[in-house]
Amino acid sequence: MTVSTPGALSPAAARAAIRRGEYTGPTTGFCAGYAQGNLVVLPKTFAWDFLLFCQRNPKACPLLEVADAGERTFAQFAPGSDIATDIPRYRVYDHGELVAEPTDVSDYFNARQDLVSFLIGCSFSFESALLEAGIPVRQIEEGVNVPMYNTNIPCRTAGVFHGNMVVSMRPIPHRLVPAAVAVTAGMPRVHGMPIQIGFPETIGITDLVRPDYGDAVTIREGEVPVFWPCGVTPQAVVMASKPSFCITHAPGHMFLTDVTNAALKL
Amino acid sequence: MTVSTPGALSPAAARAAIRRGEYTGPTTGFCAGYAQGNLVVLPKTFAWDFLLFCQRNPKACPLLEVADAGERTFAQFAPGSDIATDIPRYRVYDHGELVAEPTDVSDYFNARQDLVSFLIGCSFSFESALLEAGIPVRQIEEGVNVPMYNTNIPCRTAGVFHGNMVVSMRPIPHRLVPAAVAVTAGMPRVHGMPIQIGFPETIGITDLVRPDYGDAVTIREGEVPVFWPCGVTPQAVVMASKPSFCITHAPGHMFLTDVTNAALKL
Repeated sequence: MTVSTPGALSPAAARAAIRRGEYTGPTTGFCAGYAQGNLVVLPKTFAWDFLLFCQRNPKACPLLEVADAGERTFAQFAPGSDIATDIPRYRVYDHGELVAEPTDVSDYFNARQDLVSFLIGCSFSFESALLEAGIPVRQIEEGVNVPMYNTNIPCRTAGVFHGNMVVSMRPIPHRLVPAAVAVTAGMPRVHGMPIQIGFPETIGITDLVRPDYGDAVTIREGEVPVFWPCGVTPQAVVMASKPSFCITHAPGHMFLTDVTNAALKL
Repeated sequence: MTVSTPGALSPAAARAAIRRGEYTGPTTGFCAGYAQGNLVVLPKTFAWDFLLFCQRNPKACPLLEVADAGERTFAQFAPGSDIATDIPRYRVYDHGELVAEPTDVSDYFNARQDLVSFLIGCSFSFESALLEAGIPVRQIEEGVNVPMYNTNIPCRTAGVFHGNMVVSMRPIPHRLVPAAVAVTAGMPRVHGMPIQIGFPETIGITDLVRPDYGDAVTIREGEVPVFWPCGVTPQAVVMASKPSFCITHAPGHMFLTDVTNAALKL
C-alpha cells in the first residue's frame, strides 16, 4: 500500500496509512468516489447546542453522523475507524484559540470521556458530481483551495452558537448554471443547491478577489460566480463562540468515509 | 372563519380556530398544500438522546424543527404558533403509560420550563404528491387510517432510545410502482422512498390484514404492497423506553405548519 496513488486507495486502507503516520497532508483526490467529511469534536456540555445548531442550519451544516460521548468510531460512515488518529492533521482550540495542530489527538480522547464527535458533509462530494456532469470546478483546475466568503446571511441560533453563513464560490459558464443547480440540489446531505447566483453584493460580498478563507480563483468572461453554503460555517461559528475546548480537522485534511458520493444522493 | 371547509383554510387560521377550541378532530384534508407534522415533547434530560435518535434514523424520524427548552413556538415552520394549544388533541404519557388525551397542554408547559418540542415530518405530505402524480392512495379512497406494521428492521440506538422501525403500507398498481418510488424519493424530509416493495416477509411482516396500528386496506389484483418508513416509529420507540414524561399529538391530529409540501422537496 502506498499513498502515491491516493485516488485508488480504499477508504479503510487510506485511514490505516494515516493512522500509522505515513501521510500527514491534505486529502484532496483521495479514495475516488467516496465521501469525505468535516470533523468537529466538542465536550458534551456544548453538544446539545451544537447538534441543535446543525439541525437548524442543515444547508451549511449537513450532519452525517454523531458519535456518542467518548466514542472514537463513526460506526455508520466508517466502521473500524478511529476518529482520534485517522485524520492527517487536526486543530485543537482552547477557548477559541488555536493551540496545536497535531497529527494524532488520542491523548485528548484518553484524558476525558466526554468528547462528542460530529461528522459534517463536505463539498468535495458534490464537486465530484459536477465534474462527472461536465461542469468545470475552477479551484481544482488551478490547484488551489476553494474561495470562501463571510456573508450577511444569519444562521439560526442555537444556545451559545450563532453567526453568519460562510459560502464557497465556483465560477460557472452561463449555459451550465442550471445544470450546476440541478446536480447539487440532488445532494442535500453535502450542502445541496446554491444560495446565490451572480449577485454577490446581495449577500454582503463586495470583493471577490479577496476571499475570507481559501484562495481567489479566475472568473472568466461568460462565467457567473455561484455561491454554495460552506462547511467552514460550523467551524467559524464554533470558534466565534469560544467553547472551552474543541478539536477540528485542519482545513483540507478531511475524514475519509466508506460511503460513496453516489449513496449520499439517497 | 369556519372549519366546514378545512382544505381552504390557511394554516394560521386553522391553528387559531383549534386554539380557540372550535375544532378537536383529526386534521386529514386540512390546509391543502401545507405540510403537517408529528409532535413529540420530552423533558430536556431526554432531549439529547432523542435528537440523536432522530439524526441516526432520518427515514423514520425526519426532524423538521426542534424548539428550545420551554419554548412554545415552532418559529421556523409556524411563526406565531402555540405548540401547547394549536393541536386538536394531545396524548400525555407518564412513564410510558397514557394518562390523558387533552385538547390543550398549556398547564404542563406552565408547570415546568424544561420541555423540548420536536416536529417530525408526516407522510400526509408525500401522499399529496402521490395523488398529484396520479398514483392512488388506498386508505384515502376507503376513508380509513393508513395500515402500519412493526418490522424486524432495527433502528440505530441512541442512549435510552431503541427499537424497530414501524412502516406504513400502500398498495400500488405494478406499472405505477417506479413512479411512486421516484415521487417519494424526492421528499426525504417526509420519510422519502419506500424501504420494501412487494415482499413483506423479508422485513418481518407476516399478516397484511392485521396491521399493528391503523386499519387494513384492500389490496387489489395487480397491486403490490409498498412499505415506507413511518412517523409512528419515534412514538413507538419513545413509549417503549418509558421516559418519565412525554406529550405527543393524538394519532391523526397533527400540527399544521405554514410550510408547503412543495417547499419540503428543497
